[in-house]
Order: sequence, then C-alpha cells, then structure tokens
Amino acid sequence: MAKIAIIGYGTVGSGVYDIVKKNGGTLVRSTEGETIDIKHILDIRDFDGHPEKELFTKDFNDILNDNEVTVVAEVMGGLHPAYEFTKALLEAGKSVVTSNKELVATYGTELLEIAREKNVNYMFEASVGGGIPIIRPMHQCLTANNIVTIAGILNGTTNYILNEMISKGKAFEMALKDAQEKGYAERNPAADIEGHDACRKIAILASLASGEAVDYNDIETEGITNVTLDDVKYADEMDSVIKLIGYAKFFENGKIYSTVCPMIVNNSSPLAGVNGVFNAIMVKGDCVGDVMFYGRGAGKLPTASAVVADIVDAVKHRVRSKHFFWEKPEGNIMAGDGEVAFSYFVRTTDSADMVSKVFGKCEFVDDIVPGESAFVTKKLTGTEAKEKLSKLGGAVSSFKILD
Amino acid sequence: MAKIAIIGYGTVGSGVYDIVKKNGGTLVRSTEGETIDIKHILDIRDFDGHPEKELFTKDFNDILNDNEVTVVAEVMGGLHPAYEFTKALLEAGKSVVTSNKELVATYGTELLEIAREKNVNYMFEASVGGGIPIIRPMHQCLTANNIVTIAGILNGTTNYILNEMISKGKAFEMALKDAQEKGYAERNPAADIEGHDACRKIAILASLASGEAVDYNDIETEGITNVTLDDVKYADEMDSVIKLIGYAKFFENGKIYSTVCPMIVNNSSPLAGVNGVFNAIMVKGDCVGDVMFYGRGAGKLPTASAVVADIVDAVKHRVRSKHFFWEKPEGNIMAGDGEVAFSYFVRTTDSADMVSKVFGKCEFVDDIVPGESAFVTKKLTGTEAKEKLSKLGGAVSSFKILD
Repeated sequence: MAKIAIIGYGTVGSGVYDIVKKNGGTLVRSTEGETIDIKHILDIRDFDGHPEKELFTKDFNDILNDNEVTVVAEVMGGLHPAYEFTKALLEAGKSVVTSNKELVATYGTELLEIAREKNVNYMFEASVGGGIPIIRPMHQCLTANNIVTIAGILNGTTNYILNEMISKGKAFEMALKDAQEKGYAERNPAADIEGHDACRKIAILASLASGEAVDYNDIETEGITNVTLDDVKYADEMDSVIKLIGYAKFFENGKIYSTVCPMIVNNSSPLAGVNGVFNAIMVKGDCVGDVMFYGRGAGKLPTASAVVADIVDAVKHRVRSKHFFWEKPEGNIMAGDGEVAFSYFVRTTDSADMVSKVFGKCEFVDDIVPGESAFVTKKLTGTEAKEKLSKLGGAVSSFKILD
Repeated sequence: MAKIAIIGYGTVGSGVYDIVKKNGGTLVRSTEGETIDIKHILDIRDFDGHPEKELFTKDFNDILNDNEVTVVAEVMGGLHPAYEFTKALLEAGKSVVTSNKELVATYGTELLEIAREKNVNYMFEASVGGGIPIIRPMHQCLTANNIVTIAGILNGTTNYILNEMISKGKAFEMALKDAQEKGYAERNPAADIEGHDACRKIAILASLASGEAVDYNDIETEGITNVTLDDVKYADEMDSVIKLIGYAKFFENGKIYSTVCPMIVNNSSPLAGVNGVFNAIMVKGDCVGDVMFYGRGAGKLPTASAVVADIVDAVKHRVRSKHFFWEKPEGNIMAGDGEVAFSYFVRTTDSADMVSKVFGKCEFVDDIVPGESAFVTKKLTGTEAKEKLSKLGGAVSSFKILD
C-alpha cells in the first residue's frame, strides 16, 4: 500500500481526494495491485465536517517526518511556502507531484535537480493544460522528434473571453465581466488577461521540449486587453479568429524564440475551433508533423485527474526519476525578435499608398472601419515590423499571424 | 548501447531507420545516455544500393538468435508471418514494438500474455492513430479516470474521401478515385472504405481502456460506401458533417458497446473540424471530461515516430512489462444494440404524418431532396430504431448522431 499526502485542500486538492476515493479500484489496476492511501492532508483551515477529518493537519512536519509517506501532491499553489515545502520533501527522498505552474516555471530547474540527486520524482502534468495529457506525451511519445514549434491556447479564461467577443459580439469589458460572473475569471483577472499565466505555461513546455530552462521573464508577453471587436471582425473577414497563443520556436542551432500574444489563427487550423474554456496545444515535430492535444485546461476534477496520474506514476516508479528534466543553459539561448519572421495583420488610418510605400506589396483586407487601411504583410522579423510600423502615422493595431 | 532490429523495410520500416539515423542525438537524451544501434533489418527484398546494406538479412533466425538484440520493431504488417515472428521473439525474451494493428487486434491478447510471462514489452503506439500519441496517454495520463466513451476518426482514407464530398461536392466514387490517385487509398480500398481498418483500431482502444479483450468480430461495422452527397447536404443543413466514427461506450457494469459507422457530428465538436487525412480520437473520462488527440494517422515518418518512441521506451524499461495489457474476458462483455441509445437522422419518402405516427415527436429538417421527409429522432436504442425504421416504407438512409 502506497501512503501519500496532499498539501492544500482547495479546489484541486479536494479533487485529488475525491478521485482517489471514487476511482480507487481503477487506480489499483494502474499501480499493478498497489492501493493508494491518503494518510495526511495539510491545510491551514479547519475541515471538522469532513468524513475523514482525522487526516487533516496544520503541521507540515507531520508529512515531512512520516517515513511511510512516499509521494506528496503539492496542490496549494503560489510560490511560498510551496517552494520550501517541495524542496524539503524532495530532499527527504519523497516524490512530489504538482499542479503549481508558477512554482514549476520559477523554481523548476532547481527542484528537478534536487529530485534527480535524490533519485525521486518531481512531476507536473497538471501544471499545463489542466487535465490534458501534454507533459508526458511530449516527453515520451514525441521523443523521436526534434520539436519545431509549440503553439498553445493555454489559458481558458482568455479563450472564453475572446470566444464571447467572436461568437456573441460582446466587447472585451462585457465579456470579462461575464467570465467573472460565471467564475471563469478571478476578481483580479490580471494574471489571465495580461497573459502571465499563459507565459508560465509556455515557459514550462519550452523548457521540457528543449531540455534547457526557459526563464519566463525572457518571454515577451502581451495579453488580450487591447483586442477590440473591430479586430475580431477583421479576423472574421480573413476567415480567421483571434486567439491568445503561447508560442515557442526551436532553432536547429539550439536557440529558442518564445512569445505570448493575441494572434490571428486561420479557421483551417484546429486551434481556431477551440472554444470556451477549453485549451489545446499544437506541437510540430520534425517527424510526426502537427499533433494537437485538446481538453479542459482547468477545473477541479480535470486538473486533479492529471495530478492523480502523476501520483500513480510516482508510486509505480518510486526510486527512479523519470527525467522530466531541464537544466540551466550556459549563456543566452533565447532568440531575439529579429531572428523570427511572421506575417502581420495591420490596421492603420494611413492611406493604401502610404502602406505600400512602407511595406511594399501587401494583401489588403476590405475595411470594416471606414477610413482605415487593413492589410497582411509578407513575412517580417519583429525588428522589421516595428521599424515599418513606426513609419505609419496612424497604426491602430497589429497582430502576428500564426503559420 | 542498445541493439535493435527492424522486421520489414517498407514505408514504416525505412522511416524507423531514417529517424534513428537522423535524430540519434535526440534519442540519446531520451534513453538517458544509451545509443540505439540498428543491428539487423529483415526483408525478403534486396537493398544492394542501401548505404548500410550489410545490415540486411533474409533469415529471421539472424535476429531471433542474436542475444545482443533486445528490442525488435515489427513493421512488416499482415498476420503471417508477423504473428509467428513476434511470438518467437517475445518467447526468446526480446521486447517487440509494432505498428501492425491487424496483428494487435487479432493476436494481441495472446502476445501481451506472453510478453507479461517473459517480463518483456509488447508495445503498439503506432497501431492506432499513426503518429498521434494515444495508447500511452490513455493508459498513463488518463489512468485516474473511468473511460466513459471513445469516439475516433481512425482512418485517414475515409476521412479524406468524406472531406472531399463535404468541401468540394464530389460524389463518393469520384472522391475515392481522387484518393487513389493521390496515394491515400489502396487500389483495393475495401479495408478502408468498408470500415475494417477503423474497426481493428477501435477494438484495440476499447481493449486497452477496459482491460478486457474486445474481439473486432463483435463490432458492428459499416463503411462509407453508401454515404451520398444528399446525406452530406442534409448534414450541412444541420450544421453538421458526416464522419466515419469508431465508437466505444463503457458501462459501469463492465459491458462495452462498440460500433464503426458514419455518424452525424455537429460542427461544435472538435471532431467535425478534423479534415483531410488527419485522425483524431476523443476520449471522455469521468474526471477529465473530453480530451482529444489529433494528428497524422498514417505516413512514413509520423508512424515511424511512434514506433521509435516505443523503441526508446522498451530500451529504457528492458526487463519490465509496462502492462499495456488486456485479458480475455469471462463470458460476453459486449452490450447489444438494444442497450445503447442514440438520436438518429432519418431520410424517408414517407409523409411527415407517417413519420410522426411511427416516431412520435420528431425534429424535422428542411428537405433537400423534394418529396422526402428528413428528421431527427429522440434517443432510441438500436433495437427500437430498427423496429421503427422497418415500419417506414420509404426509408432512404439513417445515421446515428454522435452525442
């Protein structure tokens, strides 16, 4: 019997508890006969009405010092004390599984190194894409491939908001308010709508794909707060939609380009059809081509489902790190804006003549706002695009177009 | 250094060779330092112009009796001698990985049992969905879930044909001819268009999800040869498309219902947007909800990419079966047509009055063929649907509607 502990009895933590109780029989098949037994639950709150209230503790040492406990699910979120707890647990030779993307993105390199030294597991399937299998498939199933690009809808809140704008013509502020009322957006929605959440997730995926730690501070990140209904209508005119994309491109020389920004996605891409709070991650490998993983990127049971899968894996591989691993790179591995080219969609109050003078031959889009020139550029590096856009007096908005 | 062998140097086999040569460096990272060395390639043909022609042999015993070879990729296809070869290799204590869906669906139960006895691996990621990670994610990442349903576009040829009918208005025969010219369909296309290929794949997925061997002979299978352009137009009228779906439903009492048939899929489902030769598998788990896996279901490098991922896994876990496993069930586990309900779309030359008399309240669809009644039934079991359809004198066609 494997003894485990849960740290944090919030949405995900209680989901982990529920699944272990409900699907224990299924799990036994997966662990090859070993039952999973929750021995401690750490939370600062009281749960006196809980059917197993004796499991609860407020003292982290009850878990740390319990030699029977071999696997701990850290699902409390936030950096502190999650970092200190995780570090202490790994150093004590316990495996830790987590849904805490902020922690993985910030301290993952160090925690993975400790796990390797101690020959235990630090797993984080639930940290990206909620219940969607992505970390393990990318690591194991696409292992024959050099990953070329990753493009993901990694944040359900912003996808819901954009979807409401696209399908119901709601303005951003209205759609945000609606998302807050439905519980899809926090009262303080900055982490989602400014793109920070997606940024941490693409940093984790890029690190995993390359084996080199990608610092999320190095990822240029733009949220969706400036996306207008007119932008959405122009996208529709181009048989496309606007999606907040976490993007990473891996060069043969080992460099990595990564950004988070609203992009124009053509309806022929399966990413375009990802609606509501769903997430999807498109991975292009040099052998397999495009592969997409789709599902619920958040929520109690979906996220807990991924945490429990990691628990089962950690129980099955108790003393051996599965080497979900990356290391701190030597020197700068990040490619600059000048090293990667996109086509851009641009709206400006400048004349078509002026546009042609600056951008050369462009594909114009029928104007939706009278007096505007709207056009698609040929492929430009970020540096070229900025330089050209600065020559337009009346640029209204511009978006990268996803290949 | 891990010595491996390849059996069959056709499309997939040469793809495996190419990937091991091309991405050897990446593979070393995945195998934690161990290089993968191809020692033998078995094929009855001559490859005198091959840069490593010394690797080729026509004698299976060169592989079977080579104790250095620990992992063999069987990518020859067909039942015989692939079955005899695989059995002998597993019994000799070698792991076997395969893309051979026919073999896995037909002899998988026995071969998995031998692999378990010998404590080696029999892996088959490439047998379903080509390069799409599905076997491993379903087994590992969704392990916390009881699988509720699987609905997959499992055959690229038929999806291409239906897609041509839908998007270009080509009749079935034209679209088939086009697929044959493009190399997407065989000269003898029966295995694809009659649904047999999809049937073997859903049998594998259903077996894996349930742990019980599902015999593909027990799966009611209907191909796409009877789908007409009028059917396609009616589907469009209902904001839907017709897709060939491999379907399995898992009941709480352990019973399994499975079928392969053309179904009406609403455009709100991500399956509807799966175009061309792409495949996608939607899996519903009781915790995670809907998860979809999308990618290239066939082709040299995509399929070989999945085979090589299995090779790497087998190299890393040399003496331990990963328990991708199912067993022969005791008694009949298959649910009959009468135990599962779908809504049906029906076309008939009977009057709306007659339809209402037989089916009760129905949702009528605007007729595309004059003189027809077209309607959507409430949920009916297969038995009920058959009984009611038999009362209509002029039934033209009927389709299950995917939930």
